[in-house]
Amino acid sequence: MSKITVSAIEAKQLIDGYLARFIHTGNMTFSFVDVEAGKVLPEHSHANEQVSIMLEGEFELTLDGKPIRFSAGEVVVIPSGVKHSGLAITGCRILDVFYPAREDYRKLGGVDSN
Amino acid sequence: MSKITVSAIEAKQLIDGYLARFIHTGNMTFSFVDVEAGKVLPEHSHANEQVSIMLEGEFELTLDGKPIRFSAGEVVVIPSGVKHSGLAITGCRILDVFYPAREDYRKLGGVDSN
Repeated sequence: MSKITVSAIEAKQLIDGYLARFIHTGNMTFSFVDVEAGKVLPEHSHANEQVSIMLEGEFELTLDGKPIRFSAGEVVVIPSGVKHSGLAITGCRILDVFYPAREDYRKLGGVDSN
Repeated sequence: MSKITVSAIEAKQLIDGYLARFIHTGNMTFSFVDVEAGKVLPEHSHANEQVSIMLEGEFELTLDGKPIRFSAGEVVVIPSGVKHSGLAITGCRILDVFYPAREDYRKLGGVDSN
């Protein structure tokens, strides 16, 4: 396994306005997501622990009913099973890291180093 | 747990020229590292799986004897137990993600969401 160029990974549309490029290891999934301004992430939850790192832009995440606006250089930790939803305030780039790996995303593709 | 501002986390010097800000969850450690140009990372290995994401600048990582130059937008996966060393070609910012969490780094401080 050499280096991986994120922009060269085939992008998958998760939902309308959310385009993701995945890197999977045995234990973690890294999802680099480009989000269009104004697009909504419907409320959901999953057993996977999630850490969201804002790379560019501004996003409003609602975590367990509490709105959190975050922008480049800020991070939100979403514990296992906690409901969350979101709204892209601007176009943004987010890195979502999951443990354990998202097996549902692994089936969609991306780079698998496992 | 609300949002975390990376720049507000107290920085710890890992080795000469390597300044790190940590976020720990129960399972993962996120280490945001500022590296000075020309500074060397001596060869080492650890059981933790590591994923290195280049945020800014250029770094030469030597992974199991093989040099890999990577820059912003590129990622290297370092499997458990594989020897690696490095050299900062320019000043750079790297996000190193570890599974399981680096308990040695947790003792150094940072934000602990666990």
